[in-house]
Amino acid sequence: MNLDLRQYSVRTDLAVESKELAETAHGGPVSGIHEEVEELDGIKITRLDVENEQVSRQIGRLVGHYVTLEVPALRSHDSDLQERVAAAFSKEFIAFLDKIGIGPGATMLIVGLGNWNVTPDALGPLVVENVIVTRHYFELAPDQVAPGYRKVSAVAPGVLGITGIESSEIVQGIVDRTKPDVIIAIDALASRSLERVNTTIQIADIGIHPGSGIGNKRKGLTKEILGVPCIAIGVPTVCYASTIVNNAFDLMKSHFNGENGNTQSNTKQIMGLLTDLSENERLGLVKEILEPLGHDLIVTPKEIDEFIEDIANVIASGLNISLHQAIDKDNVAAHTH
Amino acid sequence: MNLDLRQYSVRTDLAVESKELAETAHGGPVSGIHEEVEELDGIKITRLDVENEQVSRQIGRLVGHYVTLEVPALRSHDSDLQERVAAAFSKEFIAFLDKIGIGPGATMLIVGLGNWNVTPDALGPLVVENVIVTRHYFELAPDQVAPGYRKVSAVAPGVLGITGIESSEIVQGIVDRTKPDVIIAIDALASRSLERVNTTIQIADIGIHPGSGIGNKRKGLTKEILGVPCIAIGVPTVCYASTIVNNAFDLMKSHFNGENGNTQSNTKQIMGLLTDLSENERLGLVKEILEPLGHDLIVTPKEIDEFIEDIANVIASGLNISLHQAIDKDNVAAHTH
Amino acid sequence: MNLDLRQYSVRTDLAVESKELAETAHGGPVSGIHEEVEELDGIKITRLDVENEQVSRQIGRLVGHYVTLEVPALRSHDSDLQERVAAAFSKEFIAFLDKIGIGPGATMLIVGLGNWNVTPDALGPLVVENVIVTRHYFELAPDQVAPGYRKVSAVAPGVLGITGIESSEIVQGIVDRTKPDVIIAIDALASRSLERVNTTIQIADIGIHPGSGIGNKRKGLTKEILGVPCIAIGVPTVCYASTIVNNAFDLMKSHFNGENGNTQSNTKQIMGLLTDLSENERLGLVKEILEPLGHDLIVTPKEIDEFIEDIANVIASGLNISLHQAIDKDNVAAHTH
Amino acid sequence: MNLDLRQYSVRTDLAVESKELAETAHGGPVSGIHEEVEELDGIKITRLDVENEQVSRQIGRLVGHYVTLEVPALRSHDSDLQERVAAAFSKEFIAFLDKIGIGPGATMLIVGLGNWNVTPDALGPLVVENVIVTRHYFELAPDQVAPGYRKVSAVAPGVLGITGIESSEIVQGIVDRTKPDVIIAIDALASRSLERVNTTIQIADIGIHPGSGIGNKRKGLTKEILGVPCIAIGVPTVCYASTIVNNAFDLMKSHFNGENGNTQSNTKQIMGLLTDLSENERLGLVKEILEPLGHDLIVTPKEIDEFIEDIANVIASGLNISLHQAIDKDNVAAHTH
Repeated sequence: MNLDLRQYSVRTDLAVESKELAETAHGGPVSGIHEEVEELDGIKITRLDVENEQVSRQIGRLVGHYVTLEVPALRSHDSDLQERVAAAFSKEFIAFLDKIGIGPGATMLIVGLGNWNVTPDALGPLVVENVIVTRHYFELAPDQVAPGYRKVSAVAPGVLGITGIESSEIVQGIVDRTKPDVIIAIDALASRSLERVNTTIQIADIGIHPGSGIGNKRKGLTKEILGVPCIAIGVPTVCYASTIVNNAFDLMKSHFNGENGNTQSNTKQIMGLLTDLSENERLGLVKEILEPLGHDLIVTPKEIDEFIEDIANVIASGLNISLHQAIDKDNVAAHTH
Repeated sequence: MNLDLRQYSVRTDLAVESKELAETAHGGPVSGIHEEVEELDGIKITRLDVENEQVSRQIGRLVGHYVTLEVPALRSHDSDLQERVAAAFSKEFIAFLDKIGIGPGATMLIVGLGNWNVTPDALGPLVVENVIVTRHYFELAPDQVAPGYRKVSAVAPGVLGITGIESSEIVQGIVDRTKPDVIIAIDALASRSLERVNTTIQIADIGIHPGSGIGNKRKGLTKEILGVPCIAIGVPTVCYASTIVNNAFDLMKSHFNGENGNTQSNTKQIMGLLTDLSENERLGLVKEILEPLGHDLIVTPKEIDEFIEDIANVIASGLNISLHQAIDKDNVAAHTH
Repeated sequence: MNLDLRQYSVRTDLAVESKELAETAHGGPVSGIHEEVEELDGIKITRLDVENEQVSRQIGRLVGHYVTLEVPALRSHDSDLQERVAAAFSKEFIAFLDKIGIGPGATMLIVGLGNWNVTPDALGPLVVENVIVTRHYFELAPDQVAPGYRKVSAVAPGVLGITGIESSEIVQGIVDRTKPDVIIAIDALASRSLERVNTTIQIADIGIHPGSGIGNKRKGLTKEILGVPCIAIGVPTVCYASTIVNNAFDLMKSHFNGENGNTQSNTKQIMGLLTDLSENERLGLVKEILEPLGHDLIVTPKEIDEFIEDIANVIASGLNISLHQAIDKDNVAAHTH
Repeated sequence: MNLDLRQYSVRTDLAVESKELAETAHGGPVSGIHEEVEELDGIKITRLDVENEQVSRQIGRLVGHYVTLEVPALRSHDSDLQERVAAAFSKEFIAFLDKIGIGPGATMLIVGLGNWNVTPDALGPLVVENVIVTRHYFELAPDQVAPGYRKVSAVAPGVLGITGIESSEIVQGIVDRTKPDVIIAIDALASRSLERVNTTIQIADIGIHPGSGIGNKRKGLTKEILGVPCIAIGVPTVCYASTIVNNAFDLMKSHFNGENGNTQSNTKQIMGLLTDLSENERLGLVKEILEPLGHDLIVTPKEIDEFIEDIANVIASGLNISLHQAIDKDNVAAHTH
């Protein structure tokens, strides 16, 4: 049998997915990760700390703090739910800033990564268009700025194919000039599960790294590069065809294992040696077959236009509430497009 | 083992796919289908006639004429190729009109089905915006219309969720008023193969039927309903997650069967009983597992914004050349947006 | 002196403007017009009835009922004000329906005239995208429609240059098929005053007539043509350069007349014989000079993208509240895009 | 009489307009300006050098080189004409670079100023989306870049109201990082004449100055600030209502003066003391009357969506041809969106 069992990395930008993978591989909980899970009204919040380098290497995620909001119904275009998610996001984001030591007076530069012409990659630019910016008021007439506002600016640097310049270089230039205390970078991500696409928001204090997100970045947005902390907010908006296939294998395996009377040997009878492969091996196999035929496209749900607008609005509202004490969930709609 | 082997229909709107499926099931060529295949410079043209009711039932396609242009590189945003495809399309479309007995003086109503707010469903409305319409000139001052133009009108009737009216009712009303000789209906389709998405154009003289295309139509656009012939031009722009998975099984099966030294029993060892299922059975199984978990989303390639514009432009250019003798491949760009 | 004093018609689609012009020409109130004016919180409402043919000819407006909402601050992108205008619009619209004898069960077809590619002409299509349509629910499962909803459908028929078909023909075809009790047609208008552009909404029970609105219609949407009453909702979104100039003359004349110490002879000294011309004569003169030089462009405010969205949203919200008892000002936002 | 004859500045960003105004005021040619005019096939090209500080103060334009292309028919959506204008633009731009001493190897950063959400202000961002960028190829693999290409990058920095940061600060940051030899800044301008709106393109080596363009810039893009030369490409896309009025006065004055048998005293009889005012005085008067009433709106032609796309495409094509020897008028369409 010719199966090439080379290791493929299961591409994910989400810490909750990395942890699951690591636990499956390890056969149980992994030490060095602290996790809190809370679920309320259809919003599942996971706060996950990767505590040391050892576990970082083990799960393939940087040491840092990760908060994930999972809202399966977020694709249902329900404006009440969207308001509740924005409120939950802002509550988490305020706590997150506090936890990582960023005070209420810290000035912020919001960076919307991605390409506004490619709908599933337009999340960052859309958030930038909807957040409240105040830096110019502070610069022009600082004593006339109403209380309850923080100094915030926002840019959408564009993508390499349109500008010819790495986003990180553009952001560095702007940071050098405008000296924000903190960067908040918004980026569209790839997921390893179609069900997470447009339903999950991740907040992390690890910045943006080459190869993360949809675009092909070669330089990151990190504290090392920028000199200031960079909080990354990401939403998976696409996934690979191969991950859909691989994911389906998993579901099928669970399905057959779970059926009454079925045993693992039954499952093996049905699915053959495929059941013996690790997730990474199987994904590698799928990719190996699909890629040469041009079948491993990156896909997004048909309704992406609506989904991306809804989530961009949730994040922008959530940031507006978090960053300015004068904004709360009752007046945020009037301030967000 | 609990496998429910109910028949599922392998959803496709493409005759070439239906024929392949039928041949696989039948184990060889199916009689009652006449097929010509031509391939030139990366454009594969298949002219397929479903000749009688018997084969129609067998392959699940209406009696009629089908022309398919398959252009794998059409997703590469290559403007030279697009021009060549528009020229090939117009050559085929002119021959098609001739074959089904529609003369050069026949007046046309082009109907762009679909929703302009949902990018993969916006094909029809985009074509409508780019075709040359002349009916108003013929109505206002028929003797002043330059020679070489045919009487053409075009509408995008919108979708049920926005109008509250079936597209077919809107089109019937317009046909009653404006009395075109022929309807040309453009619609975005679902494919059973991701590789056909945005690379294939089908022309057929069978009209539009309930359940075809992306939208949920309950009434069709057919000669029976409208009183005039309806030519359907369709492009697959989406596919179901389950068809991606099913398709991958096929590719894997072929892969293992095809490997040197592998035999069918090896393949069965690797893929288990899955290899014994017919395509329909396997798709049914995949759907049964994915659907309840909300995993059977309809997806489209990440770059759909660009793909849909490119193909809409190819079809509009192709129609402009086909319908008006005064337009040819050298001046069509100036007449198409 | 070579002044050609031919009569030019002062182009306006607004009854309040026609009445003002007639009163200026007549030198006082005109009989046969009944007028009520109400002003509250920056919203001026004028209810004006043109009572007979005689006054109709005199002011150049059809016999009928006209309600105008003038909101000078509507261009300020103030979401609170927009909500109040939507509420005021719905109150007026409900009273208007009652006054002209249209009952709460009457079914409606909303027609959004205009071109979605030309921002100042996109009002109608934008309203169509934002109104709640229900007809399909009534058709499919009438007994399952929640109480408090009326049967409403909506179409944007497109413009002659894109479809090759008069909007009125398309609408007639749809009316024949779907048999609504009433048509509500939304159209962008030309104003004779830049200050009314994007600040004024007119409701009238006279339908749409050739030459009204921005587009060049040759056929109207009227009870005579459609067989059912047609209510027109119009918003001026453009004006001619010549009307800006003419309007400025007026303002200058008033300015000089009004200045303390100035008399009419002073004004004449400053502005010459221009003061002696009637408004129509002066506009004719201006047009005569600007037109041949290509200076009599139709213009719209620079911020038209935002203005048109805001007003379309106000009208859609107002209609949603008016037409469905289940919708009120507190839940309308969740139902309107 | 109460006329307040304070000086108002006639707001224009175009050197050809400044020169005209100065000549009218001066009553003849102004020394220190060198001018060449060429007209071919509906394209009028004016090359104008402001040679010293004295004439600079006199006409209110900086010392520098100005090239203006005036194409009255550019609003006619004629693709042949657009190609000819792009070719003429590129010829002028190449000569301009040569004249001001910029060599064929100079690296360029194209800056698209303005707001992509405000159609008449979207010129800059639209040009950025359509120019060919190559800097990333030179950075990644300089020896693999095909001959005939120059190192070009492009950014659309956004506007103050969306970013909270002056465009000039963003550009400075990017210039510091990426070290281009020359900046080319594209900006939408205000014109003092409606006829120039969307028909005129100005190239100048003076950079961008506070108060120029549509946006309210407080900091400029100049060699002094950026350390590298900045070439400004501007197109008037809007004008003030007051300039339309003032312009009409001019046309009327010329009209009456020019009519056979009319003398200046006749004109004065018709237009009163208005004829005695200088252009600046009259504009001041008009502004004084219109502004307090909210009538001095900034307006743009109704068809701005189409006009802005057409001109952005002309400029992008012209730049692509000018900057890369490998691009010429025959292959530019394939490289420009």
